[in-house]
Amino acid sequence: MANVSDITVSAAINSLSALLFLLAFAIFRLQPMNDRVYFPKWYLKGIREAPSTSGPLVKKFVNLDFRMYLRFLNWVPAALKMPEPELIDHAGLDSAVYIRIYLLGLKIFVPIAILAFGVLLPVNYTGKNFKIMSVSMKDLAFGEIDKFSISNVEPASKRLAAHIVMAYVFTFWTCYVLYKEYKHVTDMRLHFLASQVRRPDQFTVLVRNVPADPDESVSEHVEHFFRVNHPDQYLVHKVVYNANKLAKMVDQKKDLKNRLIYYSNKFERRPDKRPTTKAGFWGLWGKKLDAIHYYTEEIEKLSKEEIVERERVINDPKAVVPAAFVSFRSRWGAAICAQTQQTKNPTRWITMWAPEPRDVYWNNLSIPFLELNVRKLIMGVAFFGLIFCYLFPIAFVQTLANIESIEKVLPFLKPLINRGSVKSFIQGFLPGIVLKIFLLILPMILMEMAKIEGHIAVSILEAKSAGKYHIFLLVNVFLGSIVTGTALQQLKQFLDQSASEIPKTVGLAIPMKATFFITYIMVDGWAGVAAEIFRLVPLVIYHLKNVFLVKTEKDREEAMDPGSLAWPITEPRLQLYFLLGLVYSTVTPLLLPFIIIFFAFAYLVFRHQVINVYNQKYESAASFWPDVHRRILIGLIISQFTLLGLLSTKKAANSTPFLLVLPVLTVWFYKFCKNRFESAFRKFPLQDAMIKDTLERATEPQLDLKSYLKDAYMHPIFKGGEVELMDFDEDDDDFHIVATKRASRRGSQAGTTDCSPDPRNTGFNAV
Amino acid sequence: MANVSDITVSAAINSLSALLFLLAFAIFRLQPMNDRVYFPKWYLKGIREAPSTSGPLVKKFVNLDFRMYLRFLNWVPAALKMPEPELIDHAGLDSAVYIRIYLLGLKIFVPIAILAFGVLLPVNYTGKNFKIMSVSMKDLAFGEIDKFSISNVEPASKRLAAHIVMAYVFTFWTCYVLYKEYKHVTDMRLHFLASQVRRPDQFTVLVRNVPADPDESVSEHVEHFFRVNHPDQYLVHKVVYNANKLAKMVDQKKDLKNRLIYYSNKFERRPDKRPTTKAGFWGLWGKKLDAIHYYTEEIEKLSKEEIVERERVINDPKAVVPAAFVSFRSRWGAAICAQTQQTKNPTRWITMWAPEPRDVYWNNLSIPFLELNVRKLIMGVAFFGLIFCYLFPIAFVQTLANIESIEKVLPFLKPLINRGSVKSFIQGFLPGIVLKIFLLILPMILMEMAKIEGHIAVSILEAKSAGKYHIFLLVNVFLGSIVTGTALQQLKQFLDQSASEIPKTVGLAIPMKATFFITYIMVDGWAGVAAEIFRLVPLVIYHLKNVFLVKTEKDREEAMDPGSLAWPITEPRLQLYFLLGLVYSTVTPLLLPFIIIFFAFAYLVFRHQVINVYNQKYESAASFWPDVHRRILIGLIISQFTLLGLLSTKKAANSTPFLLVLPVLTVWFYKFCKNRFESAFRKFPLQDAMIKDTLERATEPQLDLKSYLKDAYMHPIFKGGEVELMDFDEDDDDFHIVATKRASRRGSQAGTTDCSPDPRNTGFNAV
Repeated sequence: MANVSDITVSAAINSLSALLFLLAFAIFRLQPMNDRVYFPKWYLKGIREAPSTSGPLVKKFVNLDFRMYLRFLNWVPAALKMPEPELIDHAGLDSAVYIRIYLLGLKIFVPIAILAFGVLLPVNYTGKNFKIMSVSMKDLAFGEIDKFSISNVEPASKRLAAHIVMAYVFTFWTCYVLYKEYKHVTDMRLHFLASQVRRPDQFTVLVRNVPADPDESVSEHVEHFFRVNHPDQYLVHKVVYNANKLAKMVDQKKDLKNRLIYYSNKFERRPDKRPTTKAGFWGLWGKKLDAIHYYTEEIEKLSKEEIVERERVINDPKAVVPAAFVSFRSRWGAAICAQTQQTKNPTRWITMWAPEPRDVYWNNLSIPFLELNVRKLIMGVAFFGLIFCYLFPIAFVQTLANIESIEKVLPFLKPLINRGSVKSFIQGFLPGIVLKIFLLILPMILMEMAKIEGHIAVSILEAKSAGKYHIFLLVNVFLGSIVTGTALQQLKQFLDQSASEIPKTVGLAIPMKATFFITYIMVDGWAGVAAEIFRLVPLVIYHLKNVFLVKTEKDREEAMDPGSLAWPITEPRLQLYFLLGLVYSTVTPLLLPFIIIFFAFAYLVFRHQVINVYNQKYESAASFWPDVHRRILIGLIISQFTLLGLLSTKKAANSTPFLLVLPVLTVWFYKFCKNRFESAFRKFPLQDAMIKDTLERATEPQLDLKSYLKDAYMHPIFKGGEVELMDFDEDDDDFHIVATKRASRRGSQAGTTDCSPDPRNTGFNAV
Repeated sequence: MANVSDITVSAAINSLSALLFLLAFAIFRLQPMNDRVYFPKWYLKGIREAPSTSGPLVKKFVNLDFRMYLRFLNWVPAALKMPEPELIDHAGLDSAVYIRIYLLGLKIFVPIAILAFGVLLPVNYTGKNFKIMSVSMKDLAFGEIDKFSISNVEPASKRLAAHIVMAYVFTFWTCYVLYKEYKHVTDMRLHFLASQVRRPDQFTVLVRNVPADPDESVSEHVEHFFRVNHPDQYLVHKVVYNANKLAKMVDQKKDLKNRLIYYSNKFERRPDKRPTTKAGFWGLWGKKLDAIHYYTEEIEKLSKEEIVERERVINDPKAVVPAAFVSFRSRWGAAICAQTQQTKNPTRWITMWAPEPRDVYWNNLSIPFLELNVRKLIMGVAFFGLIFCYLFPIAFVQTLANIESIEKVLPFLKPLINRGSVKSFIQGFLPGIVLKIFLLILPMILMEMAKIEGHIAVSILEAKSAGKYHIFLLVNVFLGSIVTGTALQQLKQFLDQSASEIPKTVGLAIPMKATFFITYIMVDGWAGVAAEIFRLVPLVIYHLKNVFLVKTEKDREEAMDPGSLAWPITEPRLQLYFLLGLVYSTVTPLLLPFIIIFFAFAYLVFRHQVINVYNQKYESAASFWPDVHRRILIGLIISQFTLLGLLSTKKAANSTPFLLVLPVLTVWFYKFCKNRFESAFRKFPLQDAMIKDTLERATEPQLDLKSYLKDAYMHPIFKGGEVELMDFDEDDDDFHIVATKRASRRGSQAGTTDCSPDPRNTGFNAV
């Protein structure tokens, strides 16, 4: 797979598969019955109505040849047409900034590619093809493509100066573009925050680790503390109930209701036969029962239990966790409370900006300080194990899943297994599939780890699991492809090597792996992005739901799965392309066009998806940007060290001091940007708070902020609830019953804090 | 120098020299003429008066045999007598906490030594003396002492389990003691801050990087900004003048005045001969002049220039730097402003707690943000060069200073140089002296580097230079003693070794270096501390000043040099003893008693010095403690890795996982303590601010805070000044002339921000 014609073939195959996905998309999106799969965003906005299905079906197929081709091109300008401010308005700042990452890739790599093709390609091509590799290695990975790579330059040649100069140029260009982008995103964020309408989280602070008081309840203690220490600013607060058990019950009930609907539909269609189910697990075994009757009874039983539990939560003082949402009279007051330390002991009365209500991860609000530290330690060790030992459990499962064990456990399968084709399938594919499944569920494992670590907002959970995923991909995909063997073997190899040898090992392997990574970009990047726009999994699930569950138009709306950007998964994968581009920009510039095509294509696709499909669960106002920035710089530093190692194998060791300057400058640039911009993503400046407060006081002097904030931070389980809720009212310091209204559809939907990243939404294939 | 008898001799010699210092101290401190050298603290407090010098001088010498010996023991109980609260009151919290570090050393090492002697010594001694070293190495460093060290345990022996268990016990004990101490110091600090009287810095925030405004002066801009964004809290502010040139003039004038006094005194003593001086550099050459006349004229000239410059500074708007001290109505308001971000751009309107007035480093208040970042980058690179290349310039100077070059440059010295004894002195001692001089001025170099980095308080400058000094000692003294060769050669050696080999190299060398470090502890530790109490350099300087400059009692007071703890120098050196104790606790426990004697002796000496001698320049309320804590933990981690390396050379590689747990736990412990305690040293909690404010409002309702704060943050150059000062008054927004009173003596003295650490104050010999 090493010479140019091989790559051409591979590119052709992958372009074709990408084209097939696009064609399938072009066909499927025109079918009215798929409209809710490909345009759910517009339905959620209430702008789009179901297209009439009365027209003659055949017409679409008749027009296929001509119109389809037009349509096939059609979505591209449509995706590009919407201007950025409108896009922010339509899909939120997170989405708008997210697709800018692809644009950033283009901004970085197009000029780099032009320079590299103009300067480095001629320098490499006219070099003497002085092979330093052994013949076997040459057979493996060296081919015509290497005529254009640094491998073609003979060791200790003066030509290598060109590569060093280019490394400088590329570093400065990348930093320049990153600086401009950071500045622009910061401005966008600040502008977005400034132009936002009034939101409860602007006035609210989350206080955790409220110390126990023998004489006062948590609620009283919180109120007295803030009345004393923020006398002019304190307005109202909301204690947090531990409603985890109740939430589980509600989920269970929803599941039962779905089953009831399924069987009712079945009965409606065939009224002659009452549907039956079995009492055991998942209706698979046990006594045969009348399904409709059984589920109706089960739901009633659960409803009663739910009411009991609901009352217990509200009335039992032990169900109140030592945390509260404290709201202030002004944004200024909240900004002050969030940024300052309240008491001597920094592990008590910890204040931070409240996440927006949809973003709160309720389960973790009550973890005490010491436990939080222990959890982090354990998860740190577990993550280390996950990176370096993840192949052990997989190997174990694979051993279990081999022919002999299967035969032993399930002897009746023996005749089947012993048939040649089945046997070879099991032996050939099963190990690979186990690994594939692991990589598919890896983001979910990382998300669970982040939850155990005890973060209190979905956005933080996602950021943390994204960080872990990035490290995993860096070690096990990038390094794992270069230094063969398991991560543990690599680690041992690196530890046994001297520090100055490590970059050499990596540097030596880098040019040889260029063709592998080009193929990777085409398979994972090109075809993956095309698969993303086709949305196969949501398509299938939607139609299954449509057949079995949907009765009314409202049901159909609920069956829609718009999905979301799932950036904790896509962003770390995306970083791999930045890394590859930066590493190969000086080594094998031929790789750059493939990266550029990926970024351009992905930009189009994701812009389309953001406009027509995805529905973000919360809005963090691009708070993930510092992570994106940092990770690109990590890629830049890795690229500098690999070049350093590569050149030292080229007997150009005296270039080392020149190249060592680059990582130092890059680290300094990182720190500079951090100081300059990061606080805009972490803190809320007082001046802006004051401006908004003053404006609001002038325009709405009669605003009743207290009632506006009262129920903003209520556990979602109480918001959608139908029973009455005992609530603590601050005005007259006594408990009375307040009927809570059913929250608006949007609030209820937003309240479901299902934060497992959903791998279905990303067309990328893991590894 | 390897066997027990050698060490006994060395111990005897060093104990004797320490004893000699103590004896000299005992004699000298009784002489009334030395009273101001050994008890300056009491003079400064105004408690002690000069002892009468009228008694018969001979009496002291008569009583010498008997009384002196009693006195010699006498200062020890006196040093221990003062209880800690009184000590804090007398010498400040910084000093009281500083001497607790020595106590901490005792708390850590006494139990460790008991356990190590009880468990490890028998285990080591009964091991088979299986030598793994080559014969030449054995001759070099192995001796009887190794019978008690881990070297005596044969490789792969089960006995090594004892060392691993002890490593765990020592780690947990050290962490436990450190935790208790951190907690105690935190409580002391908080109690100290809470019981402090009203101080200007409690109400004041330093704001830097005030953006330029075309319509307003800096002063107006500051006032408007804080009136808007802290409406209820803003009280008054003080702009900062760039008076660096003026300060230089004042220093120059002081110097000239000293010369004038010197010549006047000379003339008084011998009125027959008018003293003369020369006009050239330092009075060494040039035209001969009448000294008194010449200096009187010079002073007059300078005074006139000074007045002009003083007026320029006050009237020229360009002399106002974009920084200001902003004071608030309450501590609460200041705490809020110091801890929050003011504007979108985090590089503007940067607020932080104002250092106390004595602590401000005025020269650095005006550095803009970008320049600050560039300065830090340059200093980082320079520091790296200083660590790894400091021997190059020294070698260069040494080459210049060899016989041949001296002969070439100064041929007339040839006959002198060629005499045997002089030649051997130059060749034998000069290179060593050059190195010694470098190490003596190193702290000053590091302080200059910290100043260039742009920190704005003397306490921060000292903390930063201490951190650099610690790293320097770690690399060039500890590692440099173990891995011979220059730091650059070491670095190369480490880079060329594999990561898993480095601990082995160090681990192998550690037991061999035990005797070297025991000698080091005695020379640098024991004798050094004894020299500290003797105060030779201040003694000589005081008497020189007394002879040449002192005329009145006030002059004599100014001639006193109480010095200060100079913790940026002593603390990093001290850390070396913690490191050695921790490293050798499992390897060669015989080293521990030497460490314990050092800590006990140093505790006594420094307690005496703090009570009787030192006068701290500012009070940071023990804000250095997090650094002390961190550095001890760094020592602990180094000790764990060296043991790990040592055991892997002992063919006990399977112990590695057990020992790897320790650094992980230690790092976690560090993070835990950081979260738990550090903010008490960095932030001022709102609750405490509120309590103090409320109390003050109740007890002193009539307090005029504005006039109290008005001149607190004035450049010291204006405080001591005699000319009138134009001042900006906030009440009526116009300039009028306010006569500033001569500041009180204490304030003026405190205002001299001479912050170069003074190596004279520490008896430690560098390396």
